[in-house]
Amino acid sequence: MASISNRLTRALDITHPIISAPMAFAAGGALAASVSAAGGLGLIGGGYGDPAWLSEQFELAAEQRVGVGFITWSLRKSPSLLDDVLRRGPAAVMLSFGDPRPFADQIRKAGARLICQCQSIDHVRDAIDAGADIIVAQGSEAGGHGALRGTLSFVPEAADLLAARSPNSMLVAAGGIADGRGLAAALMLGADGVLVGTRLWASAEALVAKGHHEAIIAAKGDDTLRTTVVDIVRELPWPRGFTARVRRNTFTERWHGREELLAKNVAVEGPPYKQAFTEGDPDNTAVWFGEAAGLIEAVEPAAAIVERMAREAAAVLAGRAGVTVS
Amino acid sequence: MASISNRLTRALDITHPIISAPMAFAAGGALAASVSAAGGLGLIGGGYGDPAWLSEQFELAAEQRVGVGFITWSLRKSPSLLDDVLRRGPAAVMLSFGDPRPFADQIRKAGARLICQCQSIDHVRDAIDAGADIIVAQGSEAGGHGALRGTLSFVPEAADLLAARSPNSMLVAAGGIADGRGLAAALMLGADGVLVGTRLWASAEALVAKGHHEAIIAAKGDDTLRTTVVDIVRELPWPRGFTARVRRNTFTERWHGREELLAKNVAVEGPPYKQAFTEGDPDNTAVWFGEAAGLIEAVEPAAAIVERMAREAAAVLAGRAGVTVS
Repeated sequence: MASISNRLTRALDITHPIISAPMAFAAGGALAASVSAAGGLGLIGGGYGDPAWLSEQFELAAEQRVGVGFITWSLRKSPSLLDDVLRRGPAAVMLSFGDPRPFADQIRKAGARLICQCQSIDHVRDAIDAGADIIVAQGSEAGGHGALRGTLSFVPEAADLLAARSPNSMLVAAGGIADGRGLAAALMLGADGVLVGTRLWASAEALVAKGHHEAIIAAKGDDTLRTTVVDIVRELPWPRGFTARVRRNTFTERWHGREELLAKNVAVEGPPYKQAFTEGDPDNTAVWFGEAAGLIEAVEPAAAIVERMAREAAAVLAGRAGVTVS
Repeated sequence: MASISNRLTRALDITHPIISAPMAFAAGGALAASVSAAGGLGLIGGGYGDPAWLSEQFELAAEQRVGVGFITWSLRKSPSLLDDVLRRGPAAVMLSFGDPRPFADQIRKAGARLICQCQSIDHVRDAIDAGADIIVAQGSEAGGHGALRGTLSFVPEAADLLAARSPNSMLVAAGGIADGRGLAAALMLGADGVLVGTRLWASAEALVAKGHHEAIIAAKGDDTLRTTVVDIVRELPWPRGFTARVRRNTFTERWHGREELLAKNVAVEGPPYKQAFTEGDPDNTAVWFGEAAGLIEAVEPAAAIVERMAREAAAVLAGRAGVTVS
């Protein structure tokens, strides 16, 4: 089978330079295990830190070498979660959305690779200071939480900074990458691999409601927005500068732009929002996908997604995208 | 010299698949002529429609085959501008920010290529209906006016739509592309070429004040934002959904988020804003660059920029970005 090898595949001992995003609630042990079994590296979503759920997901992935990802500002509130997870010997721990430095030594000493996801050049500087093995440059196209830099110019700018300041740190691109074209483009931009969220959110193994999966299949890439209303309604204290990309729907149309009013009404609005999420209603709760939705036509097994992405990228790279280079 | 050839270079009879963005005020005849002389296609910025200025710029480019670009909603107010321009036999006319269909027949009958710049999948559908020869998928990273889709996922989504609906229309990527890596990535995503704004705004030929050029050299890609305040203060009736990406500076810090108050105060705020622009002040007026600013280290002649971009792209394509494909 066609494959791409480089320093990332060698360092992580994987077949394809593809890492699955540790999506809160959606990326459980089954998804992480399938991605690793297919030759990528699967990451379980540590989310907001439910130890029992996390333990269960690690059990589901016990046959495979997987890693885990945390929301850094949330992990600071329950740091014992990191101790628990490191006892399981994860291949890697990814930190995103906050200063990684307080956790870096502990992760490396436990023998796990430290992955730091960054949303700005200042974050990349922090990740270099933390001694990250892998730095993820996450663009605004990504589903879920992120910030404002577009992937296409952020990745080469991060690559230039790493080349100058930390040439042994590897670079992974995230945000808007859902097929082999995106993987090949990321490599051209100077990345060593990709982190894939939305495309794997639309996989059979993702912990996503049927109605939400149907919504992504129907969606164009234009049908999402970045907003804070889905955090306000859950009373999650996300730091300034981070927003969530979700599907435009009844809930976002109603509240986006009326953030202060929503904050005043969380006691009323919170319970139906949460109930709608539990019920898989695609209209009255957040539906967590990014702009890559427009590239997705079916919910498929994660292995099929990972293998096709690698195969397509190898083909487009081998054929140099059909242009004649002289 | 290294070069890349494909259906776009053949159709436009150019050496490199690189088109310069018709940046209002900045892209005059000298820049367009230099880009065409270097083997790309230069476009003069038609802006808000000053016939005397436009005539002068065409004279400056008389030795070269160039095109022109218009702000579509503005052109509708003074359509005779298009008659004037078509008499000069431009190689191409680009329309952006509005429905291209009312002008499409006139442009094609005059023998010019019709280029339609799009910011959403719905715009791409309109451009197909207009019979565009070339469709530009412009991502949010771009400097100046644009919208919200990120380049990296918008380009392949547009490519898929064209493959299904209009396979003879060519696709050009814009937004965040400033070097050979960006050009190579765009080709991997399914584009036939690139439209380059910010990188050529930072060229010797661009009509840009020295203080503004100094600002882009100092900037990271993080140092821009999308806003409407630079249109409000000029009383320009931009349609909803379009914003301008400019440098974060004193003016944007003061007014972004206070749009209604600015609208009430344009009589007071407009004149100093305009004077600051005329004087090349980088702090109290809009400075028109995009996220690719973080990839730019020097103001250079346009020919050097175009030639290096093509050479780097050919090298990264030939070397498959350093990965082993098997």
